[in-house]
Amino acid sequence: MTARLLSFIANGKRGYGLAKDGGIVDLSARHGGEWRDLRAAVEAGVIDRLIEIGEGLSPDMAESDITFDIPVPSAEKIICVGVNFPDRNAEYKDGQEAPPNPSLFPRFARSFVGHNVPLTRPKASEQLDYEGEIVIVIGKGGRHIAERDALSHVVGLSLCDEGTLRDWVRHAKFNVTQGKNFDGSGSIGPWFVPFTDDEQIADIELTAKVNGELRQSDRTSRMIFSFRKIIHYISTFTTLVPGDMIVTGTPTGAGARLDPPVWLKPGDTVEVSATGLGTLVNGVVDEGAGEAS
Amino acid sequence: MTARLLSFIANGKRGYGLAKDGGIVDLSARHGGEWRDLRAAVEAGVIDRLIEIGEGLSPDMAESDITFDIPVPSAEKIICVGVNFPDRNAEYKDGQEAPPNPSLFPRFARSFVGHNVPLTRPKASEQLDYEGEIVIVIGKGGRHIAERDALSHVVGLSLCDEGTLRDWVRHAKFNVTQGKNFDGSGSIGPWFVPFTDDEQIADIELTAKVNGELRQSDRTSRMIFSFRKIIHYISTFTTLVPGDMIVTGTPTGAGARLDPPVWLKPGDTVEVSATGLGTLVNGVVDEGAGEAS
Repeated sequence: MTARLLSFIANGKRGYGLAKDGGIVDLSARHGGEWRDLRAAVEAGVIDRLIEIGEGLSPDMAESDITFDIPVPSAEKIICVGVNFPDRNAEYKDGQEAPPNPSLFPRFARSFVGHNVPLTRPKASEQLDYEGEIVIVIGKGGRHIAERDALSHVVGLSLCDEGTLRDWVRHAKFNVTQGKNFDGSGSIGPWFVPFTDDEQIADIELTAKVNGELRQSDRTSRMIFSFRKIIHYISTFTTLVPGDMIVTGTPTGAGARLDPPVWLKPGDTVEVSATGLGTLVNGVVDEGAGEAS
Repeated sequence: MTARLLSFIANGKRGYGLAKDGGIVDLSARHGGEWRDLRAAVEAGVIDRLIEIGEGLSPDMAESDITFDIPVPSAEKIICVGVNFPDRNAEYKDGQEAPPNPSLFPRFARSFVGHNVPLTRPKASEQLDYEGEIVIVIGKGGRHIAERDALSHVVGLSLCDEGTLRDWVRHAKFNVTQGKNFDGSGSIGPWFVPFTDDEQIADIELTAKVNGELRQSDRTSRMIFSFRKIIHYISTFTTLVPGDMIVTGTPTGAGARLDPPVWLKPGDTVEVSATGLGTLVNGVVDEGAGEAS
């Protein structure tokens, strides 16, 4: 099994470590003074070293002792790609060909929770929908990154339920900002696995299930914009920095495209999986559920 | 003159202080241990106290000794409002009435420079345009903020040239992300002034000039979405936190709307002013200008 680096909260403190079959190795307890968080560790170029250290240690905690955080909670930027699988473009039924450039939108870190933390269906909308996606974690920063060099800027891979409030993405004249940024409406995780080479992502399966039922399934080889192209394109306008996360687009089959649409509701479970990356699992609760009344 | 709080870089170090007529009082040199930056100071609720301290001190440096940074460089979020003046909606000529909700898009901090730092016209586009706007700095965080309480969450006011690469806002199927996020394409500053009461912003003049020529001029009383409404609306989906900046929309008259359009070019000067907030001034340089070849 490939290494799995995670960020977590345990005993009210943020930390990071390695997920092993027997539990969690707490690397922040040993190296938090040198590298405050996984962003700092990525920046320092010590991810391979941390993995090596962690491989030699026994777990400190059970997985049940921690709350999963998103893999790089302090990322400077989280940028999402819209409409990156062929059938998704057709879903828009606007007669437009596949677009010449990727559609992009930022999401704030607080719009995501970690693995096993329930997604929040907000008071403002019942149209909470799932979108299974693969996440690139940037290792080496840069601007004007050439496509041929792009993958050398990747340090890790993760999974995302790019949860969306459908009515709120068309709430205003332009932009999907609102519907993509409800607090705790999506998830990233459970961890990131180190990126090794092109083969690791060239043609892997990406799926999303709701309550065990397969809803999305496609392969990365069918993406309209390749990982290389996305990194190159984004770096045309902004400087990518270590720890930035790029969420690379979802296959057809979100709840909005069922007839009639089926939205997530409290009690549902969403599972996003991709070959070699694990499975990201999240329940759903209503905003404010559990608060004292 | 009202107090003016600024962030700066001096001798290669980030700092913050008070701008006075005779120069800059370096508050970070005295209180950086307690409050790392202005975001931390806003969070701690000590802005009034810092002003009081600064008022009693003589300037430590001349304005020419510092490089202006954006007022809250470590803000968690910078959210911009699109199309917030009546004539701007008409400019789109799409036959749509004024929209029911504000259009919003995030900008990364690195897409902005401070006062007196030149804007960058990127290699990728010649269509660099200006947009003069007023900025709200959030003091007290919150979610589901009622309109009647909204202004009690504001700690300061600033100015923005919400610089835009016009061809890149329509580069893809949805969203203006790219054209609004080119590194160093906009500016915020020079400082923020403390927010006192509704009257301070209810009906003030906002202008933008290019090379001394008035291009934009309107009054905040004509905004489609009031400051109160914007804060309320954004807090419906995301938790606002201390230091967040909201860029509240531009009047008609950007270069794109001239016939033919006139873009900013190296050597131009953009000045954004509003009553009581000062004047934000920026030149323009080409990306890479000044780099060793």
